[in-house]
Amino acid sequence: MYQDKLKNLLIKVQNGSLSIEDAVSHMKGLPFEDLGYAKVDLHRKIRNGFPEVVYCEGKTMEQIQGIFQVLMRTETNILGTRASREDYEGVHQIAPNAVYHEEAHCIVVNPTKNNQSEDDHYIAVVTAGTTDISIAEEAVVTAETFGCRVKRIYDVGVAGLHRLLAKLDLLQKADVVIVVAGMEGALASVVSGLVENPVLAVPTSVGYGTSFHGISALLTMLNSCASGVSVVNIDNGFGAAYSASLIMKEITGGIR
Amino acid sequence: MYQDKLKNLLIKVQNGSLSIEDAVSHMKGLPFEDLGYAKVDLHRKIRNGFPEVVYCEGKTMEQIQGIFQVLMRTETNILGTRASREDYEGVHQIAPNAVYHEEAHCIVVNPTKNNQSEDDHYIAVVTAGTTDISIAEEAVVTAETFGCRVKRIYDVGVAGLHRLLAKLDLLQKADVVIVVAGMEGALASVVSGLVENPVLAVPTSVGYGTSFHGISALLTMLNSCASGVSVVNIDNGFGAAYSASLIMKEITGGIR
Amino acid sequence: MYQDKLKNLLIKVQNGSLSIEDAVSHMKGLPFEDLGYAKVDLHRKIRNGFPEVVYCEGKTMEQIQGIFQVLMRTETNILGTRASREDYEGVHQIAPNAVYHEEAHCIVVNPTKNNQSEDDHYIAVVTAGTTDISIAEEAVVTAETFGCRVKRIYDVGVAGLHRLLAKLDLLQKADVVIVVAGMEGALASVVSGLVENPVLAVPTSVGYGTSFHGISALLTMLNSCASGVSVVNIDNGFGAAYSASLIMKEITGGIR
Amino acid sequence: MYQDKLKNLLIKVQNGSLSIEDAVSHMKGLPFEDLGYAKVDLHRKIRNGFPEVVYCEGKTMEQIQGIFQVLMRTETNILGTRASREDYEGVHQIAPNAVYHEEAHCIVVNPTKNNQSEDDHYIAVVTAGTTDISIAEEAVVTAETFGCRVKRIYDVGVAGLHRLLAKLDLLQKADVVIVVAGMEGALASVVSGLVENPVLAVPTSVGYGTSFHGISALLTMLNSCASGVSVVNIDNGFGAAYSASLIMKEITGGIR
Amino acid sequence: MYQDKLKNLLIKVQNGSLSIEDAVSHMKGLPFEDLGYAKVDLHRKIRNGFPEVVYCEGKTMEQIQGIFQVLMRTETNILGTRASREDYEGVHQIAPNAVYHEEAHCIVVNPTKNNQSEDDHYIAVVTAGTTDISIAEEAVVTAETFGCRVKRIYDVGVAGLHRLLAKLDLLQKADVVIVVAGMEGALASVVSGLVENPVLAVPTSVGYGTSFHGISALLTMLNSCASGVSVVNIDNGFGAAYSASLIMKEITGGIR
Amino acid sequence: MYQDKLKNLLIKVQNGSLSIEDAVSHMKGLPFEDLGYAKVDLHRKIRNGFPEVVYCEGKTMEQIQGIFQVLMRTETNILGTRASREDYEGVHQIAPNAVYHEEAHCIVVNPTKNNQSEDDHYIAVVTAGTTDISIAEEAVVTAETFGCRVKRIYDVGVAGLHRLLAKLDLLQKADVVIVVAGMEGALASVVSGLVENPVLAVPTSVGYGTSFHGISALLTMLNSCASGVSVVNIDNGFGAAYSASLIMKEITGGIR
Amino acid sequence: MYQDKLKNLLIKVQNGSLSIEDAVSHMKGLPFEDLGYAKVDLHRKIRNGFPEVVYCEGKTMEQIQGIFQVLMRTETNILGTRASREDYEGVHQIAPNAVYHEEAHCIVVNPTKNNQSEDDHYIAVVTAGTTDISIAEEAVVTAETFGCRVKRIYDVGVAGLHRLLAKLDLLQKADVVIVVAGMEGALASVVSGLVENPVLAVPTSVGYGTSFHGISALLTMLNSCASGVSVVNIDNGFGAAYSASLIMKEITGGIR
Amino acid sequence: MYQDKLKNLLIKVQNGSLSIEDAVSHMKGLPFEDLGYAKVDLHRKIRNGFPEVVYCEGKTMEQIQGIFQVLMRTETNILGTRASREDYEGVHQIAPNAVYHEEAHCIVVNPTKNNQSEDDHYIAVVTAGTTDISIAEEAVVTAETFGCRVKRIYDVGVAGLHRLLAKLDLLQKADVVIVVAGMEGALASVVSGLVENPVLAVPTSVGYGTSFHGISALLTMLNSCASGVSVVNIDNGFGAAYSASLIMKEITGGIR
Repeated sequence: MYQDKLKNLLIKVQNGSLSIEDAVSHMKGLPFEDLGYAKVDLHRKIRNGFPEVVYCEGKTMEQIQGIFQVLMRTETNILGTRASREDYEGVHQIAPNAVYHEEAHCIVVNPTKNNQSEDDHYIAVVTAGTTDISIAEEAVVTAETFGCRVKRIYDVGVAGLHRLLAKLDLLQKADVVIVVAGMEGALASVVSGLVENPVLAVPTSVGYGTSFHGISALLTMLNSCASGVSVVNIDNGFGAAYSASLIMKEITGGIR
Repeated sequence: MYQDKLKNLLIKVQNGSLSIEDAVSHMKGLPFEDLGYAKVDLHRKIRNGFPEVVYCEGKTMEQIQGIFQVLMRTETNILGTRASREDYEGVHQIAPNAVYHEEAHCIVVNPTKNNQSEDDHYIAVVTAGTTDISIAEEAVVTAETFGCRVKRIYDVGVAGLHRLLAKLDLLQKADVVIVVAGMEGALASVVSGLVENPVLAVPTSVGYGTSFHGISALLTMLNSCASGVSVVNIDNGFGAAYSASLIMKEITGGIR
Repeated sequence: MYQDKLKNLLIKVQNGSLSIEDAVSHMKGLPFEDLGYAKVDLHRKIRNGFPEVVYCEGKTMEQIQGIFQVLMRTETNILGTRASREDYEGVHQIAPNAVYHEEAHCIVVNPTKNNQSEDDHYIAVVTAGTTDISIAEEAVVTAETFGCRVKRIYDVGVAGLHRLLAKLDLLQKADVVIVVAGMEGALASVVSGLVENPVLAVPTSVGYGTSFHGISALLTMLNSCASGVSVVNIDNGFGAAYSASLIMKEITGGIR
Repeated sequence: MYQDKLKNLLIKVQNGSLSIEDAVSHMKGLPFEDLGYAKVDLHRKIRNGFPEVVYCEGKTMEQIQGIFQVLMRTETNILGTRASREDYEGVHQIAPNAVYHEEAHCIVVNPTKNNQSEDDHYIAVVTAGTTDISIAEEAVVTAETFGCRVKRIYDVGVAGLHRLLAKLDLLQKADVVIVVAGMEGALASVVSGLVENPVLAVPTSVGYGTSFHGISALLTMLNSCASGVSVVNIDNGFGAAYSASLIMKEITGGIR
Repeated sequence: MYQDKLKNLLIKVQNGSLSIEDAVSHMKGLPFEDLGYAKVDLHRKIRNGFPEVVYCEGKTMEQIQGIFQVLMRTETNILGTRASREDYEGVHQIAPNAVYHEEAHCIVVNPTKNNQSEDDHYIAVVTAGTTDISIAEEAVVTAETFGCRVKRIYDVGVAGLHRLLAKLDLLQKADVVIVVAGMEGALASVVSGLVENPVLAVPTSVGYGTSFHGISALLTMLNSCASGVSVVNIDNGFGAAYSASLIMKEITGGIR
Repeated sequence: MYQDKLKNLLIKVQNGSLSIEDAVSHMKGLPFEDLGYAKVDLHRKIRNGFPEVVYCEGKTMEQIQGIFQVLMRTETNILGTRASREDYEGVHQIAPNAVYHEEAHCIVVNPTKNNQSEDDHYIAVVTAGTTDISIAEEAVVTAETFGCRVKRIYDVGVAGLHRLLAKLDLLQKADVVIVVAGMEGALASVVSGLVENPVLAVPTSVGYGTSFHGISALLTMLNSCASGVSVVNIDNGFGAAYSASLIMKEITGGIR
Repeated sequence: MYQDKLKNLLIKVQNGSLSIEDAVSHMKGLPFEDLGYAKVDLHRKIRNGFPEVVYCEGKTMEQIQGIFQVLMRTETNILGTRASREDYEGVHQIAPNAVYHEEAHCIVVNPTKNNQSEDDHYIAVVTAGTTDISIAEEAVVTAETFGCRVKRIYDVGVAGLHRLLAKLDLLQKADVVIVVAGMEGALASVVSGLVENPVLAVPTSVGYGTSFHGISALLTMLNSCASGVSVVNIDNGFGAAYSASLIMKEITGGIR
Repeated sequence: MYQDKLKNLLIKVQNGSLSIEDAVSHMKGLPFEDLGYAKVDLHRKIRNGFPEVVYCEGKTMEQIQGIFQVLMRTETNILGTRASREDYEGVHQIAPNAVYHEEAHCIVVNPTKNNQSEDDHYIAVVTAGTTDISIAEEAVVTAETFGCRVKRIYDVGVAGLHRLLAKLDLLQKADVVIVVAGMEGALASVVSGLVENPVLAVPTSVGYGTSFHGISALLTMLNSCASGVSVVNIDNGFGAAYSASLIMKEITGGIR
C-alpha cells in the first residue's frame, strides 16, 4: 500500500499534476494531525481496517480529550485502554456515545452494534484464576472492538485440572487461544499441549512474593515446554488481543 | 480415587445405568459450581479431608461472598486467607459463625471446636523476630483449621542463640518445624542443624534495603547448608502449614 | 478429537467390545512408547499433521538414537533441533537419509521433497544482523520442514533504515513475519509498524555487556510500542517458526 | 538427645567420675574429628540413623580421601554427592567396596544390600523431560542409600498430559512425590493438583535463554497455584531426597 | 584554571603577600559556603559559565530556601530541578522573580531574557510518545536556562515511522539530538541511524510490566546497533541537556 | 564469659550447691524475659557494655511499649531505631525521659549526660549530599548513645572535590570514618584513598532511576578500588555506627 | 542529504530522465551491496566522512572477508573491531596493508598516514587501572582512525587521587574526555567534577564478584552525581570514541 | 601528613629553596613512577606502614614484572594477590626471594621473618566449609604479610553448631573476626551473636544454583540480624584482611 502510494505520487509528478515540493512533503509519510504533544494518526482504519487505539495511562485529561477529538472526525470506532473512570468521564463529555468497560478499564467510542460475525470462528480467552479476569476483560473488549467473536473460560488454573478438561471442547475449537495467568503461569503450557492452534500468553501481575509482579509467570510462558506459545508484556491483554485479531483477520479474510 | 471414579462410571455405562453422553460429561472432572468468575470446587474435603480455602486478596466483595456461599453448602469448615477486616465483614454477613484472626489476616467459617488431637504430635512454628509473627500466625491458623496441634516459639533469631537453645526441647520433639524468618533468614539453617525432622522454611518480607522484600531470606533458605529444609514462597505461611498438615496426616494416619 | 476418542471408547464398552480394564488404561491418554528415559509420542502427525520434533541438547547419543529409532517407525518426517554435528553423525548411522543443516544446528529425517506449496503464502524471516543468521536458519528449517514457504531478509537492522525499506514489498506481502534480532532488538518494533500482519519476535543472545545474553532484546520486544508483536524465548527460532506454522496452517486450511 | 547427653555429663560431674575441665570440653558439642581443613562429624548415624554425606565438588582429592577415611571408621554407609568419576577413583583406592553411580554423580560406600523395606511405602521421583534425569538420579540414589524405596516416572512433562495421566496410579499411591523439572517447571503444580500427599519440587538448570539456569523453574515452583509444594535449590536432587527421607522415616517409624 | 589559582597562590607566598597558613586554607579548594547540611558552591558560573543547579527532591523546604538564598548572592541564574509546586512556592517567597515550569518540574530564578542566540545552532529534543513529554521538558528548560536554543519534536515513536520521517529535516540540522523514550526505547537507535551528529538518549520510566520502570528502554539505548548514542540515567532529562549544553558550548565557542 | 559461666555452673553442681535439673535449665543460655511476641534480652550491657537496642519498624505500639518496659528495669540507656514520631509518643508515655531525634528517627531512653570522652578519639560521619543526612544522623545518634564522640562532615560529594579536601584534616584524624552516600556512592572509594584508618560505608537509597534504591551505591562500595572499605546494608546508619563503636571500644579500651 | 536525494529523484522523474519504476527502487534507500548474509553499506564515508566499521565477533571468516572485500572497493579506510588475531590473518590475505592492533583487538585497512591534525584539539582517554587498557586502546584506535588526536592517561583510579591530580592539566585541556573504568567506576564522577567539557564514560567488565562483569561500574556512571557524564555499553570503547569523534567533528568543523 | 607536606613545600617556597614551578609539580601529589600502563605508588609504606599490593589478575606478565621491579626498589615487602603459579614464576625470575602461597593464590616478596608480634592480639579467620578455605587463606596471607597474628578456625558451618561452639574460646578472644562463608552465609550472623568484637564478613562464590556465585551469602551478611557485621566483596579475602589489619594497627598502636 505504501508502495502504491509512492507510485501514485510519482505518476502525478510525471504527469505534472503534483509539484515536486508537494510530493516531497507527502512522501514523508501518511497524514497525521500534529497536536504538539501528540501526532494523531488518522488513517489506521484505512490502512489495516482496525479501530484507532488510545493508551490513556499517563496522559492528562486535556491530552486524552484532544486526541479523541481528532480521531472522532474519522468514522471509525475508537478504543481507549488503561482508562480510569475519570478518564472515561472526560471522554464522555465530548463523545456522548462512549461506553466504559469498568473491569477492563476500557473506553469504546462509536461501538459498532453488529460487528461480530455469525460464523464459527472465535478466540477463546482463558484465565487461571478469578483475579486475572480484569486483564482478560481488556483482551475481550479489544478483540470485540476489532470485530472478533470471543468465548470466556475463566478460573481454570492447573491446580484443578478437571475444571480445565471440562472446557476442552470449547478450547480445542477456538481458532486462537489467549491464556491469561499470574502466579506461576503454568496454564499456558498445559493449554498449549491440549490444543492445535496458536496460543497467545499474557502473564499477569497477580500473586505476591516471588511472583515478582508477573515476572514468574512471564518466564514460565517464555520457557513453555509445549510449542506454539508466544508471549506479550505483563498485563498486556490488549496486545494479545491485537495479535489474535490480526490472525483472525488472516484466517477469515477480513475483520470478523 | 480418580481411578475408582473412572471405573465406577464405566461399570455404569457397561451395565446401562448411565448414558454415554452423561458419562462423557461426568468424566471431564470432579463436580464444581461455575460462577462464571470462579469455578468453585465442592469436593475437596471428600477428596483429601481438608477444608476448602479461599484466597481473598484481589477479589471483589461480590466474588468473595459468592464463593463462600457456594462452599457453605458443604458441611466443611472454610479458610479465607489474606483477608482484610473489610473482607471479613462481608463474609460475616452471610456466615454468622465466621471468625476473624486479625494478626493472621484469616477468616474461618464453621470452625470445628475440638478438632485438635489429644496426642503428642505437633507442628512447631518458629519466628526469628517479632515482626515475622503476622506470617507465622497465618501458618498457625491454617494448621489448626486443618486439625493439627501447633506450638509457637517466637522471637528466637540467631543473633541471640541462647534464646533458641532455651527452646531446644520443644523444637526437637515437634514432628515438623515451620521456620518463619525475614532479613537474612539464617534461622532455618540453624534450626535444621538442631532437629531431625523436616523443616519447612517461610521467608518473610521483613527487613529493608538488601532484604529485597524477602529475597535475601529466600535465597538463604534455598542454599541452606543444613539438609532437610524445603522452602515456600515469601510470606506464604499458608503454604508451609498446608505442606506440614499433609505430612502430619501421613504420620498420624489422618487429619490431626 | 480427544472427545471423540473418549466417546468411541465408551461406545465400545457399552457394546461390550472393550473390557472396563482396557478402557481405563486406554483412557489415560494417547499411545506413546515408553523407553524409560523418554516417553516417545507416536501420533503427533495424526493429531496435528506436524512432524515430530526432538530437542537434542543435553541428551546422550544413546537417548537421541533411541528416540529417533522409535519415531522412524512412523512415516512422518522428523526434526532434530539444537543438534551438534556429532549428534547428526549418530542419527545418520540409523537414518541414512538424514540431512544436517549446519548453520541451523538441525537434523531432518525423511525430508519431504515437494512439501512446499506453489501458492503465494509465505513466512518472512528477517534478521537485524549477520550474527543473528544462525537462529534465523533454525526458524527457516523448522518452517520448511513443517511445509511452509519462507523468504529470507537478512541484515536489515535499524541502524540503516534504507536497507529495510528496500525490502518493504517482501515484508508487507508475507502472511507472518519472524523478526530475529539481538543487541537492542529494535527491529521488531519498526517492522511491526510497517506491516499489517502478525509479527513473531525472536530475541537472540547476540551482543555483549548489557545485552545480557538476549535480555535486552527480549525486553525491547515485550515492550514494543507497535502492536501486533508476540515474543518467544531467547534464541528460540524453532518456537517462532512453530507458532508461525500454526498460523499458516489456519490461513491456508492445512499444512503448507 | 542433646539434653540427655547434657544430663549424663552433669551426673558424672556430680558423682565425681568426670572432672570439670573434661566436662566443659565435652559439653561444647558432639564429638567430631578435626582434620584442620574439615571437622568430620562421626555420629550422625547415631544421632538420626542416617548415613554420612560428603559434598565432593570443590574439594581436593586429598580432602575427599581424608574425610572418607575418617568416616569409614564408623560402620555406617557413606554417600558422596556431586562426585566426578575422578573423585570416585580416588575414593575407590581407599574404599574397595565403593560404588559409582555415573548418571547421579554419586559415590556410595558400604552400600547396604537389603536396606529397602518390603512394604508399600515409596517415594515417586518424577521428571518433566529426559534431560532432567541426571538430577532425578541423584535423588534416587540418595533416597535409596537412606533406606527408602523409590519408583521412577520419567519424561512426563505437561506438554503431553496423557503421558502423565497414564502414570496417575503410581503417582497417587506414593507417600511423597519428588518432581524434577527444568525449563518452565510447570509439572510441579500439575502433579500437586493431582495427588494428596506432599510434593517436593526440584528446579533444574535444564533449558536455555530465559530459563536462566533454573530460575524460571524455581519461580514457577515457589508460586505454584496448587498447595502442598515445597521447593529446594536448583539441581538439588539430594536435598529433596533428604527431606523426603525424613518424612518417610516419620511415616514408617524408622528408616525404610 | 585550578593550576593558575595554585600558581597565583604560590607567587603570593613567594612575594610575601600571603601567609603560609592562609595559603594552605585557600589551597584546599575553591570557596563555598558551609550551611552544615549543605556546602553551597558559589563560583560555578565563574568556573564554567553555567548557572547553579539545585536538585530539590528529598530536601526539606528549609534546606531548599537556605541553598537558594546563598546562591542568589551571585548574579547568576539558578535552576531548581525535580521541584514540586510546593517547593516552588517556598522559593518564590524569597525569590520573587522565580518562574515555575509545571510540566518540567523546574524552578528558574533570574531567568535571563535574551540569552538565546540568533544563530542556527540548536538542540533537537525528541520524544517517542506523549507521556515522555514531562522528562523532555526538563531537558528543554535546562538547555534554555543554559543559553541554548531548542526545537521540540514530540510523539514520533517508531510504531509510525512516517511521523518521524516527516521531521527528518529538523532532526538532521540539529547539532545535538536528545532522544527521550520509554517502553522499548527503540527510537534512539532509529534516530541515530538517520542523523550524523551526537545523540544523547534518555530512557524514561514510562511503560508497565517488563518496562521495569525504564530498565528496558535503558538497555535498548545502551545496546544501540547504531553508533553515536550515549546514555544518561532513567528520567534524567537534566543530565542529557547538561551534556548537550557542554557540547554546544564547545561548538559555538561559548554559552549559547 | 560464656565459658566462665559454664565452669561456674559445673563447680556448683560438683560441690552440690546446684541441682542437675537447675543446671540444665540455666545452661541453655543467658537470661531473657519472654513476652511471647518477644524474648527480651536483659543483659547485653553486662555482656558487652552496650545499650539495648529496639528496632521499632513493623512492631505494634503494644509490642514496642512492652519491650521498652522490660528493658527499663535495667539501668542501661536504650536506643530505639527506625521509630516514627508516633512510636516515640507511645514510648514517652511510659518513659518520661525519652528523647526523640526527628531527623534520625531514633528514640533514646535514659540518655547519659556526660558519656562522651574528653580525649581525641572520634568517629567522622561523612555524607555525599544533603539528602543523605537522615541516615547519617541515625549513625550519629547511635554512636553517641554508645558513648563515642562524633564529628559531622556533610555534603562533600565527589562532584566538587574541593569541598572534601577542605575537610581533609578532620577526616584524616578520625579513628574510624563512616561514609554515607547514595546515587553512585563514589565518595567511599575517594575517602578511603585519602585516609589510613578503617572506613565503614553506608549506601543510601537516595537517587532515582538506576540508583535502584541504593543498589548502585552498594555495588560501588563493595567494589571499591581503594582497600579498607567494608559495607553495611542500604540505609543502615545504625549498623555502621555499631561496628564503628566496637572498633572504638577496642582502640580506647572501653566504651567512649 | 536524504531530502536532497529525494528532490533530485523527483526532478529527474519530472523531466523524464528517470522512469517511475527506477525512481521507486532508488527511493527505497541509499545503495548497498547485498551479500545475502550481509547488506554492506558503501557510502558512509560520503554521508558522514567516516570510515566504514566491521564488527567482527560472531562472524565467520568467509563473512568477514566478504564484507571487507566489498568495502575495499571504496577508497575509505576500514576499521574492524573485536577482531581476533585469526580474523586479522584472514583479512590480511585480501588486504595486504591491513594493520592489527593487538591490545585493542582492532584491524585497520588503508590506514591514512597523516590524518591527525596539527592543532590543539584532542580527546583524553583515561583509565582507572592497568587492566582497563585493552578497552581504552579500542577507543584510541577508533578515534585515531576517525582522524582525531588522542592523549592517553592510564592507571589514575581514585584510590590514589594524587596520580589523577598530577595529570590535571592534560585532562582539563582536552575537548572531550573518555573515562574507562571497571570495578566501582568512580573515576567518571571524579573526572567530571574536575573538567568543564563532556565526559563519555565506558564501564569495563574488569573486576570480580559484585562487579557483575561491569554492571557495578555502569550503574555508578549512570548515577554520577557530577553532571556532564553520558555512558555507553560495557566494554564499548568503540562507541565512546565514535561519539567523541562526532563531537570533535562538530567542534573543529570537519574530521580531525 | 598530606597537610604537613603541603606546609613544608610552602615554607620552602617562602624561603626560596624551591621554585614555584617545582612546587606546583610536587604539589600535584605524592611521587609515583609512571610506567605508561601503570602509575606505581612508591611510598605507601611511608604513608601508612603497610606493604605494597599488586592485584595480578588480568595483567600481562610484562606488566606484573614491571610493577614488581619498581616496587622492589623500596625496602618494603610486597604482596601479589590473585596470582597464578605462572604469575609467580615470572615474579620469581626477578625476585628470587619471592614465595608462593598456592592455596591463597598469593605471592609475597621480601617476606619479613619475625614480623608477628608476641602479644595476645590476633585475628580469627573462620570458614563455614572446606571449600571456603582458598579465600580464607588469601585473608591469612594478607594479614600475616601486614604483620598481624592469625588463628584459623575452619569448617564450622551452622549445620553442626557443636563444631562452632567447640571453638568459642578462640573466637571470643580474637580482636577481630573474619568470617568466610559461601552458600547461605549464615555463619556471619551466628558468630556475630557470639562475640563482642567487630566481624568482617567475606561471602564466597562457593555453592550452586541459587547461591548465584556468592550473591546469596552476600545478601545474608548485609542483612545480618546480629549487629557488628560489615561486609566486603564476594571472594575478597584480601579486603577483609586489609580492613582487619587497619583495626589491629589502631588497637595495638602500630603494625602488628
